[in-house]
This record gives sequence, C-alpha cells and structure tokens, in this order.
Amino acid sequence: MAKKAPRRTAERILEAALALFNRYGEPNVSTTAISAELGISPGNLYYHYPAKDELVNALFERYEQALESLLAAGGEVEDVEDAWFFMHTLFERVWQYRFLYRDLNHLLSRNRLLETRLKLLLQHKTQALQAMLHSMRRQALHMDSQDVEATATSMTVLLTYWLSFEYVCDPRHALEPDNAQAALLRGAHHVLGLLGPHLAPQQREHLQGLVGAYAPRAT
Amino acid sequence: MAKKAPRRTAERILEAALALFNRYGEPNVSTTAISAELGISPGNLYYHYPAKDELVNALFERYEQALESLLAAGGEVEDVEDAWFFMHTLFERVWQYRFLYRDLNHLLSRNRLLETRLKLLLQHKTQALQAMLHSMRRQALHMDSQDVEATATSMTVLLTYWLSFEYVCDPRHALEPDNAQAALLRGAHHVLGLLGPHLAPQQREHLQGLVGAYAPRAT
Repeated sequence: MAKKAPRRTAERILEAALALFNRYGEPNVSTTAISAELGISPGNLYYHYPAKDELVNALFERYEQALESLLAAGGEVEDVEDAWFFMHTLFERVWQYRFLYRDLNHLLSRNRLLETRLKLLLQHKTQALQAMLHSMRRQALHMDSQDVEATATSMTVLLTYWLSFEYVCDPRHALEPDNAQAALLRGAHHVLGLLGPHLAPQQREHLQGLVGAYAPRAT
Repeated sequence: MAKKAPRRTAERILEAALALFNRYGEPNVSTTAISAELGISPGNLYYHYPAKDELVNALFERYEQALESLLAAGGEVEDVEDAWFFMHTLFERVWQYRFLYRDLNHLLSRNRLLETRLKLLLQHKTQALQAMLHSMRRQALHMDSQDVEATATSMTVLLTYWLSFEYVCDPRHALEPDNAQAALLRGAHHVLGLLGPHLAPQQREHLQGLVGAYAPRAT
C-alpha cells in the first residue's frame, strides 16, 4: 500500500492540472494554484513534476495515446453511422484535453516535445481520415481518389480548430462544461458536412437524420 | 512639415511592430525591442503607444479595415475565377497580419477589444462567404440553400486557421516570408475545394485548372 501512494498523488496532480488548464487556460494556471487546489505543498508537487511543462507533457502524452488508439479505427468506418460515431468520439477526446487547443501555438512555440509530436499527431489524424474516406468509398461515398487527400486535410483542420473557433465566437462560455455537447455536435456536423455532396442518396439522408436527431440539443 | 513628424513616427512604429510580431510572435516581442529596431528611445515609443496592447489594437484595426472592405465584394463573386481571386486576396490580408493568427486565443484572452471585435469579424467573414455562395448559385454552383450556411462556416474556419495549421506542421518555417506564396495557395485550394462537388462540370474543370496552374509553385 505504502508504495502506491506516490503514484496516486502523481495521478491526482495530473487530474487537477487538466481540470484547471481546461478551465482557465494553461498560461493562467501556476503550479502553486494546482497544489493549492489539491491541498498539498508546492514541494510535494515539485517532487512529482519539477516544472509545469512536465505536467503539460504528461497530459499531452495521455491525449496522444487516447487519440492514437482511436485513430487506428479510421479504416473500419464503412457508412455515415460509423463515421458519425467515429467523429463524435474524436471530438470527445479533443474536448477532454481542450486546453491544448485553446493555446496551441503559444504552447508549441516554447515546448520542444509538443513542437515535434503534435505535428505527427496531425499527420496521423489526416491519415486516419484518408483511411476512413477510402473505406467509405467501397459503398457509401462517391469521391475521386484525387480528392481524398485534400478532403482529409480539410477535415483535420476543422477537427483541430473547431474548439478554437467556438472560443473566438464566445470566449467566456465556449470551453465551459455546459457547452460540451453542443460544441461537439456542431463540430461533428461541420466535419462530416464535407462528405455530404459525395454521399449516396440514402447515406446522405441518413446523415441528415443523425444531424437532425441531435440538432435540437445543439442550439 | 513639423506637424507631420509625429504621425510619421507613429506610422514607422506600427510598421516595425507588425514586422517583428509577424516574425517572432507578439508575446516574444517587447516594446523595447521595437524601439531598438527603429533606433528611437523607449520614451518616444511610449509617447505614441503607452502600452503594447495599443500597438496590437492599432494593427488589428488596420487589419479589420482592410478585410471588411474586401469582404463587401463577396456578393459580386460569380464564378470560380472570381472566387479564386477573392479567396487569394483574403489570404493575402491574413498573411499580412499573421501574428494575429499565430497566437489568436492567447491574444484574445487578455484583450477586450479583440475579444469583442474578432468575433464580429468572423461573423462578417461567414456572411461574405454566404453571399459569395448565393451569388455563385445563380449559375456556377449547385448547392441546396440549406447547405450554404454550414459550408460558409466551414470555409471561415479553414480560412481563419489555415496558417495556424501550417504553423503546427512546421513551426520554424511556416510563417517565414519564403513560405507565403505556397501557404496562401494551399489555403485557397482547400477552402475552394469545399465547392468542388457542387460545381457545374465546366466550372469544376476551370477550378482544377487554376489550382494546377499555381500548384507547381506551391510545393
């Protein structure tokens, strides 16, 4: 039991840091604020994470792991129903670590790990979306293979920056927990909207049905 | 003549600030660095702009003016050739003030003017793109009127965050002057790519021709 205690503290620190970063933005949260939130001494926090960037890095690695395991499923998406849930789950992960997207370039410009790894993550997102489009082309989707790459890239940009866009539109509420469901649905709707004109009529109707079923909650 | 001197200095300060913000990111440029660049005293700079945020605000207002006058032309776009040049000119304005997009949310979270006005600017972008789509629907574009709003919003997100995306993909080079032309063309290509499946065949070919004509320079 005694040996587990430090691990539990490290875990609690990460959870508190994530909640505070998401709430106030990483630049506005000091390590002192995190230790105060947990009721532990700054020295105790320092023992686990000697610098704030190590907290950022640990959280980024969790996000990366969560996202990568999900992205692997891109090639298994066959129809708009699969695509809808795939996109929705991707957005849920992004929402969970939304502090990364709130100050993305600011974080990036001073953190080597993020500078190298985030780029790879975006490449993997685009590859997963390409795999999804290729898989959907077997039945549901009529898209020239030459359009797959540009469409996947545009979908990555929408997926990556949707929350930033919501933040600019309403800085004081966009990233509050209350807005989660509506923000994710608007995001998924717009990313999948790029498929609309390429869908077989039945699939297109089905997508509109899915968007419509969720839309009342999204306003 | 004597009366014009202060105006000229204020102008020179703005130009130097814009160049340095674009190059190094606004958070990494102090007012002292700006006055050193110009060979004027910090007191002289302070006389014109008592705080760095006033420089940011003055530059934002120029950007806003430049963009708004351009957005008004959205409703005059009739075919893909007009759309291509409209989009390209929009991207040129964005590039000129790219520091705003490099640290957008960071700037936003501590600047009231940006918080209120940037939101409006994004709304105007979306409205201009809606006007463009409606105007193109007269001949070149087959798009259900219910798709116009979501497409215009997705185009706004792509237009707004394209440079941020390029920055994540290559933080050390994306915003350097050498990359301008390629970045703008990739951006315009992806934004207008959303129109692809809705275009009349001839218009579609014409768009591919425009993209192709510029593409060799974009790699």
